[in-house]
Amino acid sequence: MEKYAQRGVSAGKEEVHEAVKNLNHGLYPKSFCKIYPDFLADDADWVNVMSSDGSGTKAILAYLYWRETGDVSVWEGIAQDAIVMNLDDLICVGATDRFLYTSIINRNKNLIPGEVISALIQGSQKFFDSLAAHGISVNFLGGETADLGDCVRSITVDGSMVTRMKKSELILTKNIQPGNVIVGLASYGKATYEAECNSGISSNGLTSARHDVLSKYYAEQFPQSFDAAIDASLVYSGSKRMTEALEGTPLNIGKALLSPTRTFAPVIKQLLAELPGSINALVNCTGGAQTKVLHYIENLRIIKDNLLPVPPVFQLIQSESGTDWREMYKVLNCGTRMEVYTSEQHTDGIINTAKSFGIDAQVIGRVEAADKAEVVVRSQHGEFTYN
Amino acid sequence: MEKYAQRGVSAGKEEVHEAVKNLNHGLYPKSFCKIYPDFLADDADWVNVMSSDGSGTKAILAYLYWRETGDVSVWEGIAQDAIVMNLDDLICVGATDRFLYTSIINRNKNLIPGEVISALIQGSQKFFDSLAAHGISVNFLGGETADLGDCVRSITVDGSMVTRMKKSELILTKNIQPGNVIVGLASYGKATYEAECNSGISSNGLTSARHDVLSKYYAEQFPQSFDAAIDASLVYSGSKRMTEALEGTPLNIGKALLSPTRTFAPVIKQLLAELPGSINALVNCTGGAQTKVLHYIENLRIIKDNLLPVPPVFQLIQSESGTDWREMYKVLNCGTRMEVYTSEQHTDGIINTAKSFGIDAQVIGRVEAADKAEVVVRSQHGEFTYN
Repeated sequence: MEKYAQRGVSAGKEEVHEAVKNLNHGLYPKSFCKIYPDFLADDADWVNVMSSDGSGTKAILAYLYWRETGDVSVWEGIAQDAIVMNLDDLICVGATDRFLYTSIINRNKNLIPGEVISALIQGSQKFFDSLAAHGISVNFLGGETADLGDCVRSITVDGSMVTRMKKSELILTKNIQPGNVIVGLASYGKATYEAECNSGISSNGLTSARHDVLSKYYAEQFPQSFDAAIDASLVYSGSKRMTEALEGTPLNIGKALLSPTRTFAPVIKQLLAELPGSINALVNCTGGAQTKVLHYIENLRIIKDNLLPVPPVFQLIQSESGTDWREMYKVLNCGTRMEVYTSEQHTDGIINTAKSFGIDAQVIGRVEAADKAEVVVRSQHGEFTYN
Repeated sequence: MEKYAQRGVSAGKEEVHEAVKNLNHGLYPKSFCKIYPDFLADDADWVNVMSSDGSGTKAILAYLYWRETGDVSVWEGIAQDAIVMNLDDLICVGATDRFLYTSIINRNKNLIPGEVISALIQGSQKFFDSLAAHGISVNFLGGETADLGDCVRSITVDGSMVTRMKKSELILTKNIQPGNVIVGLASYGKATYEAECNSGISSNGLTSARHDVLSKYYAEQFPQSFDAAIDASLVYSGSKRMTEALEGTPLNIGKALLSPTRTFAPVIKQLLAELPGSINALVNCTGGAQTKVLHYIENLRIIKDNLLPVPPVFQLIQSESGTDWREMYKVLNCGTRMEVYTSEQHTDGIINTAKSFGIDAQVIGRVEAADKAEVVVRSQHGEFTYN
């Protein structure tokens, strides 16, 4: 979609893929995360996995909401976003424990005071404490907070996570096969380990969602929250204020756009323990959303004809932006975030486990042999083929 | 210095220290890097160390130089800066091998095209290849490149590095003791493993240095290279263009300010192998510069009365900014970057090893008992006491 490019976002990341193509891509080229030999301990039965990612421009939503309402707690959610964008990628290869994490916060000190840094850092530790209650240990090894106002308009919040795991416990996308069914786990609702209802948003597609939904008020009040080089017609071109209610949810629009990225780590950890060897693959539908799996398959058609319902925040983004649904499913998870590729006989168990954590789940589709990689979404909004 | 605060930089990082004070500070509270139990492999004889850091606002100097001259290779130096700001902290606790690294690049895509990303990523790998020739293995495990033009004016370049090491090989600042002498290793010159003469600059203090040295030309031509909220009198308030020669060096002023942060890893690795048990401590004089050691000591006076000569780039910064020398030694390494705390009898060996790598070195000072932590710099520019 051309609007992405005009807003300075390369949806496909072609340039980045070109730049990294000569690097070491690890032991399993099309795995969900790159998997490396055990450089850290030289054990042939173990591997190393490492991830770096962040909250992206969702941090700007927190900035606007905090400035508008004074609610500093939204920054705790941004800390969670940066963490889960790493954690939930790593769990997709089967890693569920002994993580190390460091944070990297770059701020414009004139706009972002100590109380925000404090909420980010203490929010990180609070989130790690909640994971520990589910047997997932993430050790917070500090990080860097830099004052870079000449580089950063407001703030960026990133982190890196690393772990070692047994090779025998790896979950690899190459094991997706014809006949597999897909259990989809919902991005929305309130999991037993969450304190608040989640809109289902994660930390992707939010440059566009922010500009498409929020009104010019934010451009006028907070010029530090966007790149003035973007065509003015694309800046905060929606009709909403963050404090307006989002119909069908207990959240206002600001909080709905800011719902912290849900982690599925507690659920996946339990599934892997309950069903050893029965999960073919896990795909976290972040960037690329319902088409994410295309990066990992060949000669397979993924048919998704029973996706979970599209929750209100995505309906809002669609109606405010006028984005067609073909694009919506490609950019935003639209309600279904974690995919479990498995055999028919395991689906009930997986669904029951997800529901025991308060997370909606259902069989959303299946895998067929094909002569190329293809995803077909059949939804109430139409049928879309991606390849 | 008040100018730092007005330019949005908190030299002392008080707010950050406050925010992190309740986190786990590891096994040795005043060590140069935080040292943690071996979460990754549960071996009681090993520890984990992890660092996150970046090139800071030095990336803006690269942006300006690249735009002014078309020389894209300066971005390779920024990649090195982000790496060495991590690596040389980790070597200070004795880690010299089996590193993992991921990069985090946040860019404004409208200003930073693919060729820059390519130079950063390929520059990282090139630098790792050069380290490998000295037996230092850093495994580049990819990272994240995000398009965040609404957050980032131009670009930020950060990275995270992690390793495991034997507890018995730890080098700890708590072993600094009265009677120790300090061998200082030069930040300037051309090490045998460097391709170009190095000015001695690292990646600290460059917000001020950039504004103090460069002329208003850069404010006019590149408004995207600073925070417009800063008082105009503090923006590019110097007299220089980057293309002007820096007297006394083969570098122009741009290249001098951009000299990639030198790594001492090859030297330190050899020193630790040659002199096992003989190095009390290592201190990398980055942020805090000649006063850095103050973070790690109690009841000791560090007297530095024979620092290496101040190379031209620091003379330039001093004369353009009018900064007093007391402040200069506190913010910029001024020629002496790596400190080796040791006993008198080892100094010749250390100096000879450094010189075998083409790096100037000399005994720069000594350690005395005192009733509090104190650093005394006695230089051609005066005597300064810090505590």
